[in-house]
Amino acid sequence: MDKLWKKNLRDIEPYVPGEQSKEINIVKINANENPYPPSPKVTEAIRNFESSKLRFYPDANAFTFKKAMAEYFNTDAENIFIGNGSDDVIALCFQAFFNSQKPIVYPDITYSFYPVWCRLFHIPYKNYPLKSNFRIDIEDYKEENGGVIIPNPNAPTSLGEGRAFIEKLMEYNKDSIVIIDEAYVDFGGYSSVELTKKYENLIVTGTFSKSRSLAGMRIGYAVGNRELIAVLEAVKNSYNSYTVNSISMAAGTAAINDKDYFHKTVSQVIATREKVSNALKELGFTVLDSQTNFLFATHKTKNMKEYFEWLKTQKVFIRYFNLPKIDNYVRITIGTDKEMDRFLEKTTEYIHL
Amino acid sequence: MDKLWKKNLRDIEPYVPGEQSKEINIVKINANENPYPPSPKVTEAIRNFESSKLRFYPDANAFTFKKAMAEYFNTDAENIFIGNGSDDVIALCFQAFFNSQKPIVYPDITYSFYPVWCRLFHIPYKNYPLKSNFRIDIEDYKEENGGVIIPNPNAPTSLGEGRAFIEKLMEYNKDSIVIIDEAYVDFGGYSSVELTKKYENLIVTGTFSKSRSLAGMRIGYAVGNRELIAVLEAVKNSYNSYTVNSISMAAGTAAINDKDYFHKTVSQVIATREKVSNALKELGFTVLDSQTNFLFATHKTKNMKEYFEWLKTQKVFIRYFNLPKIDNYVRITIGTDKEMDRFLEKTTEYIHL
Repeated sequence: MDKLWKKNLRDIEPYVPGEQSKEINIVKINANENPYPPSPKVTEAIRNFESSKLRFYPDANAFTFKKAMAEYFNTDAENIFIGNGSDDVIALCFQAFFNSQKPIVYPDITYSFYPVWCRLFHIPYKNYPLKSNFRIDIEDYKEENGGVIIPNPNAPTSLGEGRAFIEKLMEYNKDSIVIIDEAYVDFGGYSSVELTKKYENLIVTGTFSKSRSLAGMRIGYAVGNRELIAVLEAVKNSYNSYTVNSISMAAGTAAINDKDYFHKTVSQVIATREKVSNALKELGFTVLDSQTNFLFATHKTKNMKEYFEWLKTQKVFIRYFNLPKIDNYVRITIGTDKEMDRFLEKTTEYIHL
Repeated sequence: MDKLWKKNLRDIEPYVPGEQSKEINIVKINANENPYPPSPKVTEAIRNFESSKLRFYPDANAFTFKKAMAEYFNTDAENIFIGNGSDDVIALCFQAFFNSQKPIVYPDITYSFYPVWCRLFHIPYKNYPLKSNFRIDIEDYKEENGGVIIPNPNAPTSLGEGRAFIEKLMEYNKDSIVIIDEAYVDFGGYSSVELTKKYENLIVTGTFSKSRSLAGMRIGYAVGNRELIAVLEAVKNSYNSYTVNSISMAAGTAAINDKDYFHKTVSQVIATREKVSNALKELGFTVLDSQTNFLFATHKTKNMKEYFEWLKTQKVFIRYFNLPKIDNYVRITIGTDKEMDRFLEKTTEYIHL
C-alpha cells in the first residue's frame, strides 16, 4: 500500500514549462519575447544598483515604482498594484476577486493559464466559444457569472477590441468584477486603463515582459479603483509581502520613465509586423489583423503542423498549438528585421517545396 | 445597499507589512537583516549581468542555480526547489503538502505567517503551546495531524533543537509531511537537510535573506525527496512558472558558491551575538541561548515595552511583540559591532535611568 502521507499531496497535473533553447544561431520567435534589449536606462539602473542595499528587505509597498507608474497612467499610486510578473498579478486577482459560487467566464481560445488558476484555486469556470472569425461574441457575456476575464488583445488570436466593446462588457457585467488582461496592448491595442476611473469593478493588468523587454525581470501590474487594489494588496501580503525584489523595482522604474526608447522599439516591432504580415499574405497565408507582437496565421493549402516542424529543422522556432479549432494555425513572434528575413526566406522555401 | 460585485471580493484582514525606515543615523536591528553586505561575488554577478538577456524569460527550472545548490547540499538538482523568498517557498509547500481535513500543527509562538497562510488556503490548524522555558514539547507532536511545520531554530525564541529531536519528530509523524523551516539555521543551528535522504516525508526550507545578506533579492529554497519536490514544482508551475528572475538566479548562484565569505560573515555575526548576549546578562537581562542572528531577551525588573519605546526615541530600533506569553520580551537583531556598541550604550543608559 502507498504511504499514508502521500494522501496529503496536492493532486495536480505536472505542468512542464517550455524550455529555453541554449542553441545559438537560431531564430527564436516562439515565446512572444521582444527582439530588442531593454532600455539603456534599465542597464544603467542595474549597474548602478548599490548591492550592499540587498541586505535589506525590499519596500513591500513598492512606493517609488508605483509613483512612476501612476504618473505614466495619469492616476494615483493607490490605484496601482505591482507584482512578480503578470502571471503573479493575475493569479492574485483570481484569489482576490473570483470568490463566487457562479462560474467565471472567458473565451474558449485564450491564455492557457486561466483554467490552470481556476483548478489551483477551486474556482468554477465556463468558456464561451469565439466566433468563426476568432472574435469574441460580446452577447455571450450578458449571462450571469462570478467574474469575467478578457485578454485584450487576445492571445494567440492577436485580435483586439475597442472602447465600445469594453463599455458594453461593463454594461452587461455590473455585478461582477471584470479583469482586462492587457499583456499585449502596447503594440496597437486599446487600453482600458482610462475606464478604470469610470467603472469601479474594472481592473486592468499588464506586464513589462513584452513591450518593455523585461521578461527576465518579472514585472507585472494592475490598475483599478483603490478598493480593488487594497484587496489585492491584502491577498498579496497574506501570501508573500515581498514578491518584487529591489533590483526589479529599480529596473521597472527606469523602464517606465524612458518613454522615448519604449516608443521607438514598439514602433519598430509594429513596422516589422506589418511588413511580415504582408509578405506572408503574398505567400498564400491568411494572417489575422494583429494588435500584438505576434502574428496568428494559417495557409490555404499547407499543413501548419508540418510547416512548424519543418521550420524547426531549419533552426527557426515558431509556436504551434495542437488544440481544437486552431490546429492548422501557427503563432509567429515578431523578431528583428534580420530574424524575420530569415524566417520569410525559410517560409518561402517551404511553400515552394 | 452595497454593490453586488463586492460580494466576490476576498474577505481578508488587510495585513500591513512593516515599513523600512528612511531615516539615516539609526541603528536598525529590528528585521533580522544581516549587517554585512552580500558577497563581492554577488556584486560582480549583478554588475556583469548582460542586461540584453532580460528580454528572455528566465529558466523556469533554475537549472544552473539548482546545480550549485545541490553541490552545496551534497545532493541532486532534482532534490532542490527554488522560490521567490522562503515565504513563497513555504506558501507553495502549504498548498502542495497540506491537503488533509485534519489540522496541521505547529508551536503557538512561532513565525507569524503560518496562520496567515492557513487562512488564505483554508487549511485547518492547531497550535501546541511551548513549554515555560520556550522549548517545543516533542510529545505534543505524537497526536494525529494533517501535517507539521516546525521552525528550527524557532523565531522569535531563537532556540534550536538537535538531530535527536527531529528524528523523534519523524518517528511520531510517519503519516504526515513534515516541514522544517530553517530560515536561521546557518547561525549555529542543526540542519535537517541530511535527514531528507533518510525520511522521504521530510522537507527542509531555507532562505538567502539572513545568512547570505540577500533579503532584497528574494531567494528561498526547499530540499527534499524527488517526489515532494516534483509536486512542489507542479504547484509552482500552476501558479507562476517564472517566480525567480534571471538576476536573482545569477546572484544566488554567486552567493552559494562563495563559501569563504559566507563563513566569515556568519562567524562574525555569531561572535558579536555572544558578546552582546554576555553584556546584556551583566545588565540584568535574561537572554535565551540563541542559535540565530538575533537575541530574545527579558529583564528582571524593567518593562520591555517601555524599553523598546525608549530605544526608539534614541534611534535604536529593536522589535517588540505585543503577544501573550512574550509581552515582556524583546527581539534584538545582531548588527555590526559598532551598531551593537551603540545599542549597549543606550541600553546601559536605560537600565540606569
